Amino acid sequence: MNVRMDLELQVAVAKVSKYAVSESGDTVEVIERPHGGLSLVLVDGQRSGKSAKAISNIVARKAVSLLADGVRDGASARAAHDYLRTMRGGQVSATLNIVSVDLGTRTIVISRNSHCPAIVVQSTDGELLLLDEPSQAIGIHARTRPVITELPIVKGLHAIVFTDGVLSAGERYGQKLDAPAFVRERLPLCAGETCARSLADGLLGQAVALERDRPGDDISIVVLSVVDRQQPDDIRRLSVRFPI
Amino acid sequence: MNVRMDLELQVAVAKVSKYAVSESGDTVEVIERPHGGLSLVLVDGQRSGKSAKAISNIVARKAVSLLADGVRDGASARAAHDYLRTMRGGQVSATLNIVSVDLGTRTIVISRNSHCPAIVVQSTDGELLLLDEPSQAIGIHARTRPVITELPIVKGLHAIVFTDGVLSAGERYGQKLDAPAFVRERLPLCAGETCARSLADGLLGQAVALERDRPGDDISIVVLSVVDRQQPDDIRRLSVRFPI
Repeated sequence: MNVRMDLELQVAVAKVSKYAVSESGDTVEVIERPHGGLSLVLVDGQRSGKSAKAISNIVARKAVSLLADGVRDGASARAAHDYLRTMRGGQVSATLNIVSVDLGTRTIVISRNSHCPAIVVQSTDGELLLLDEPSQAIGIHARTRPVITELPIVKGLHAIVFTDGVLSAGERYGQKLDAPAFVRERLPLCAGETCARSLADGLLGQAVALERDRPGDDISIVVLSVVDRQQPDDIRRLSVRFPI
Repeated sequence: MNVRMDLELQVAVAKVSKYAVSESGDTVEVIERPHGGLSLVLVDGQRSGKSAKAISNIVARKAVSLLADGVRDGASARAAHDYLRTMRGGQVSATLNIVSVDLGTRTIVISRNSHCPAIVVQSTDGELLLLDEPSQAIGIHARTRPVITELPIVKGLHAIVFTDGVLSAGERYGQKLDAPAFVRERLPLCAGETCARSLADGLLGQAVALERDRPGDDISIVVLSVVDRQQPDDIRRLSVRFPI
């Protein structure tokens, strides 16, 4: 009870929609897990704009509501797939990532239904692990299941998950974004309170710059960092900012 | 499409549990609204610790899932009440606040099922409005309904909503927290990017200090601020930080 712990968990989400499209087709939600910790759900609906948003919204809602009920991540991802496939007759796809901080098992669980890799750093020496095992988008084929990786929560753990707007950033102009290289370079500069925030903002900034400030696709980035505790208090903080 | 807007919405949540109790009985969730904007759901379950958390969790889940489906705030609050009352036979209460940013109507909607007032500042002259119309907690009586206030989104709008840990802060030591006075004093100092964040952190810090660093109750604070746009980009940002 009230043991003074020495780590801090940071989550940062940065998100922008395709240029000249007011609505992003990506949806990111965060929800508290009933047994402690939280889950992030990141969905990229097929195509962009309103129709993509409708898809990503129903997938995210289904996953979030199951996770909030305490359903395990793998089952939630399978259910979100089955639900989308039933609703849309297997005609519409979405990518789905669930990143969970499970304080019961003290692990980070990354579930991928996406061709986008996830980037993981597991130690302070900055060595990168690329989670890029082949993985299917949801909504189309029967019995699609997520590729799941579980990692112990340790100091210096970082997980970076994104939608395919990051993969394609700069492609049109012949200069593709190398996300792992960016993370490797940026990580040593990330400090204290703003570690996850600066990684997410930096990576998104780079992606948007390579698209010459007019992203050709929705781009969403989730960063999770475990750092030394920054404050002695036990306060939990959540912040949201966006232009209206 | 992609009109350059000049306002920024900021949300900040700060939350701490009762001293020596690892689990807060309060639950705060944020969810995207399907027609644009977001909703914050703030629930304080009766008593503290595990049993209170179980209550606040089911109430928040019900409200969040309805809001995510596009159900209007008043109906979501009524449904959360009916659900809790049915599940617990009218024996268990909770306070429920829903604060929504509705980008369809360009309004902030504050729904109160709580004896705690909400503090609103509607202009840059710093005049305070106290939303303190009598309002019933949910879960006990038949046909309980929320007290709802709708405010146009304008620059300089701030809304501060909290659980009753703020009301009782300092009471034991004969020096009660005057939240409106604190907001009035602090507001002129709040600047740019960190406006909502510093209000939430400042108010919680004051509450915890008056409890001599050992809060006698769970304390949760939600601040929503509309300020001048801080960055030219169209990026949406979410951050979470907590000790683990």
